[in-house]
Amino acid sequence: MQLGLSVSDSDVSSFTPLVVLELADDTKAEAITWLLNRIRDKQQNGGAELLVNQLLFPAQDDQKPNPNVFLVGSTLQRLLNGAEDVGLFKEFQDGTMRGFTYANRESFKDFNGDGEGVLSDAECQYIIKHELDTLRAKNEEHVPGYPKLKLYPGKSVVRRLQSKGVLIQYFPLHNKEDLKRLSFSWYKKFKLSFQPLDDIRHYFGEGLALYFGFLEYFTFALVPMALIGIPYYLFDWEDYDKYVLFAVFNLVWSTVFLEVWKRCSATLAYGWGTLSRKKAFEEPRAGFHGALGFNPVTGREEPVYPSSKRQLRIYLVSVPFVLLCLYLSFYVMMVYFDMEFWAINIYNENPDIATSILLFVPSIIYAVVIEIMNLLYRFAAEFLTDWENHRLESSFQNHLVLKVLVFNFVNCFASLFYIAFVMQDMVLLRQSLATLLITSQILNQVMEAFLPYWLQRRRNKKVHKRMRRLMGDKELPLLGQVQLETEMNTYLGTFDDYLEQFLLFGYVSLFSCVYPLAAVLVVLNNITEVYSDAFKMCHVFKRPFSEPATNIGVWQLAFETMSIIAVVTNCALIGLSPQMKAYFPESDTQLILIVVTIEHVLLAFKFILAFVIPDVPKHIQVNLAKLEFDSLEALKKRIIEIWKDMTMKENN
Amino acid sequence: MQLGLSVSDSDVSSFTPLVVLELADDTKAEAITWLLNRIRDKQQNGGAELLVNQLLFPAQDDQKPNPNVFLVGSTLQRLLNGAEDVGLFKEFQDGTMRGFTYANRESFKDFNGDGEGVLSDAECQYIIKHELDTLRAKNEEHVPGYPKLKLYPGKSVVRRLQSKGVLIQYFPLHNKEDLKRLSFSWYKKFKLSFQPLDDIRHYFGEGLALYFGFLEYFTFALVPMALIGIPYYLFDWEDYDKYVLFAVFNLVWSTVFLEVWKRCSATLAYGWGTLSRKKAFEEPRAGFHGALGFNPVTGREEPVYPSSKRQLRIYLVSVPFVLLCLYLSFYVMMVYFDMEFWAINIYNENPDIATSILLFVPSIIYAVVIEIMNLLYRFAAEFLTDWENHRLESSFQNHLVLKVLVFNFVNCFASLFYIAFVMQDMVLLRQSLATLLITSQILNQVMEAFLPYWLQRRRNKKVHKRMRRLMGDKELPLLGQVQLETEMNTYLGTFDDYLEQFLLFGYVSLFSCVYPLAAVLVVLNNITEVYSDAFKMCHVFKRPFSEPATNIGVWQLAFETMSIIAVVTNCALIGLSPQMKAYFPESDTQLILIVVTIEHVLLAFKFILAFVIPDVPKHIQVNLAKLEFDSLEALKKRIIEIWKDMTMKENN
Repeated sequence: MQLGLSVSDSDVSSFTPLVVLELADDTKAEAITWLLNRIRDKQQNGGAELLVNQLLFPAQDDQKPNPNVFLVGSTLQRLLNGAEDVGLFKEFQDGTMRGFTYANRESFKDFNGDGEGVLSDAECQYIIKHELDTLRAKNEEHVPGYPKLKLYPGKSVVRRLQSKGVLIQYFPLHNKEDLKRLSFSWYKKFKLSFQPLDDIRHYFGEGLALYFGFLEYFTFALVPMALIGIPYYLFDWEDYDKYVLFAVFNLVWSTVFLEVWKRCSATLAYGWGTLSRKKAFEEPRAGFHGALGFNPVTGREEPVYPSSKRQLRIYLVSVPFVLLCLYLSFYVMMVYFDMEFWAINIYNENPDIATSILLFVPSIIYAVVIEIMNLLYRFAAEFLTDWENHRLESSFQNHLVLKVLVFNFVNCFASLFYIAFVMQDMVLLRQSLATLLITSQILNQVMEAFLPYWLQRRRNKKVHKRMRRLMGDKELPLLGQVQLETEMNTYLGTFDDYLEQFLLFGYVSLFSCVYPLAAVLVVLNNITEVYSDAFKMCHVFKRPFSEPATNIGVWQLAFETMSIIAVVTNCALIGLSPQMKAYFPESDTQLILIVVTIEHVLLAFKFILAFVIPDVPKHIQVNLAKLEFDSLEALKKRIIEIWKDMTMKENN
Repeated sequence: MQLGLSVSDSDVSSFTPLVVLELADDTKAEAITWLLNRIRDKQQNGGAELLVNQLLFPAQDDQKPNPNVFLVGSTLQRLLNGAEDVGLFKEFQDGTMRGFTYANRESFKDFNGDGEGVLSDAECQYIIKHELDTLRAKNEEHVPGYPKLKLYPGKSVVRRLQSKGVLIQYFPLHNKEDLKRLSFSWYKKFKLSFQPLDDIRHYFGEGLALYFGFLEYFTFALVPMALIGIPYYLFDWEDYDKYVLFAVFNLVWSTVFLEVWKRCSATLAYGWGTLSRKKAFEEPRAGFHGALGFNPVTGREEPVYPSSKRQLRIYLVSVPFVLLCLYLSFYVMMVYFDMEFWAINIYNENPDIATSILLFVPSIIYAVVIEIMNLLYRFAAEFLTDWENHRLESSFQNHLVLKVLVFNFVNCFASLFYIAFVMQDMVLLRQSLATLLITSQILNQVMEAFLPYWLQRRRNKKVHKRMRRLMGDKELPLLGQVQLETEMNTYLGTFDDYLEQFLLFGYVSLFSCVYPLAAVLVVLNNITEVYSDAFKMCHVFKRPFSEPATNIGVWQLAFETMSIIAVVTNCALIGLSPQMKAYFPESDTQLILIVVTIEHVLLAFKFILAFVIPDVPKHIQVNLAKLEFDSLEALKKRIIEIWKDMTMKENN
């Protein structure tokens, strides 16, 4: 709440702009007036009661940009009320986290004066987003000026404007001072330190802070594997069968660290007040469409789309499409193997430096192709999932994640599985693994940070030039900042970042007993990843709205599934090792039985471990129980009071 | 709430007695006076505000029974208030289940007149139990007359009196008319029908109704297995390797039915109003002891016992003890095998009818020994778990269940595992399985129903005789009923009943491909089990207090674990079958690999199925969401009202 900027406007007293709304430049004037009135209107009248102003351009600007850009802010009191409305949890005087209420506001720890400092920047913007999203149509039948933009009582105005492209985007503004401070403590000092998770959360919200927390935790968790892997690599390159111990260590370790992460994330989420927060009722997605009907939960009028139709779309179109893509992926894999054999043949005929370099070419090409296929598939999956017409954003996300995960898993690891278990060529496996891992890391860093950075710099230069022309050499004011941020790319959420970590985890764990150096490579990658991710959040993308996340959600499940598959693959690899076979020279049967038994024991051990380690640390459990107990006691007191009232009335 | 009995007493107006309190017959008079006053005192003064009277004996009774028996009842208004206090959910006018509140009492469906009919019998008694349990000490330092029975503010009076044996027992009274009606619809008519679950719940509460619901569901679920099993038994006895299909069907079926049960139990629990009910704060167990300290959750003074000490007791005493018992169980198993070989030798030397009967003797003896060991172990486990000094009843129960489950599983199935996988003697396996199953069924029915019934009849006769001597030939009045029920055995909860079903499930599923008739036997057993369990609840045991259960709790997990183990055992049995071996004459390796692959696919399929089938049916999810939504809307309205108030004040 210490944004340094303020809108100077003659009509309204100045306020700190927090959120930018951009409407299409051909939006009809009556629609704009209506929307601004609804946003400014009192809550009693169903308005959002926020402050909003148009961004004014200097008259001499010849290169007409979109004039329909609006800045939204709010009074402090409105924000504090909104905090109660969205159900924020804040630290109470006694150190526990409690649901913030306006009535008790002075009993919260950071409350002083008028209430500055209780709400973080990201929270203020989240509250404004929530109030805008829940601004509902009253009796309007359509958006003024747009007879085709039908409305019905209770429909979210913003969602409707968004779905038809009248509202192009709305996003929170960066706070230059805070950003400077954050980026300094985050990635500009070159000493080793933990990431400033609380500051990240303060600025970007819980969802992103949890991602960076996980990234850091995961990297630290890989350090022991990496340290043990180095001597294996240095001294025993060809004796991969000595990696049995290493594999067992990896399996146990990956289970433990995933379990412990749940506790860490619960601790973080508790401290940030999201753990005990109740989920608000979810609005339909902006893109959701259907015949008008009644929502069975709210009883309100809203579009209804029969889930049977959605099921048909999923099973008759999406599933066959995914299977087709998987088939394609297999086909590409077989082409890669042809290339591989061709390269080996050339090398065998004429072994020199040129041909030995040629040996790596097929793997590198294949790795690039994999990345391109992943990218194309990603677009297709998004299109399909959108077409499935899910009512809720969460259900959309789950279906998207499932589609993408299955394909990426197969696409990235199919060749490795084929080499390991069909061809049983461990040398090739090791070489393929290394090439795939390194190539995909390099590609990823380029695609996700450097390329957008380069594009952004070009745009920045253009805006700066124009601003200098308009304003002379003064420091870039609000106008320029808004212009700049409006054109920045939108950060699409943590999905791709988690996906990348998930695939890296696969490279480390699935074939760990063949290539112990994988952990080292991933640790090195993640150290640069922290910096490039931090940089891209601060300077390449628009500031995202904060998401009040409690945990890493479906990714926890994905990582756990991967670690279960890893048990199976590692046991199988150990069973295939010649050294193990040497112990049982007469019969394979005994060897297989022993390996299968060990596998079952390891799997059982994993499940027991997951069951035994509590997901939430003891002291947080106690605090949550305390909260529950207090609210029960309050309820009981209220009952006794009603009871007293009643008996008093009866006696009179 | 239509109890026909009433206490006639000169001092107080008559009331319907619901609960019986029995104090030790040498309890000091001042303690009794104090306790009765506390029970009768107003809620404002920290009392329970219940009605209580001593049970009066006719003067001419020479055979002095315990005079300190008290009857507890309540006014209807107090019960309705208590219903809000314990958080009961009731059907609202619009058909959804909502938390009952005294203020809105008239909007609930079954409310008419003064409120008769809203609360079931079992609920009234549960409310009285709750009010008695939460009757707390105020400033008393000890129980009057007992300087050693220390009290501290907030200590539950009833728990303290119980822990030192001053309060011998308290239990709900039977309602003779309702009982007659229930037992008629339950087990007295001889036509095939579903069990009257709603009536059972009405009379005994949700916990027991869920058990009977599960028993019925489980039995029906076994019928398809039994039907498929019969032709296998009739036509293909010796070709057990043809059971592959049967085994696969069993595995899939057991997964599906366990998943569907979750939905059924959610539906039942929703209709009974326990699904959305919040759990109250749990009091320490009556037997829990420790140095006086502060509870971190409530902040109240209460005994504290360091969990490190408990851990020491668990790991240094309980775990070694369980391991010792397991060793003993193995030892007994080896003795059984010696007996088995001895019997077979005798039969081989001299094969006639006598010796062929002798063949079954070792199995029968072993089955009886197993049951005796289970029983002895049960006592030891209860003693040990009590000694571990768990603070909460739920934690006590979990540790007890774990101890008992592990031992019973090993004790019952170890010999079968040994025969199947070490001896690989399928004929002996089938014979052992049948003998164990049948013997344990017979023993169980005798031990849990007929023996207690016979003892109870002897006691009944004695009481009836005495009553006739006192009262002449009049119908047995309240006095006699209380006398009778005071002496009945206490029903120790559904633990043993679930355990029995768990072991039966093991016999059916673990080796289903060897002995398909097991399902038939279990179905037959369960049909009689329903009748004998119903009979024992109505006539052999004291009426138990109802437990507001939402699901079958830890047993769901136990059954699911069993079905996972069953996948492994059945796949292994299929792998061992000679017919499968005939398909792969050259190498065992290929066979084993295929079996292991099938096993993994089945296990993965199980997990996916469990993940895909939602635990709560759609329409109940919608209803729960509606409830959540309404309370959020109410909160929002309240916020807007506060907001309006505030602005109005500011404007004035």
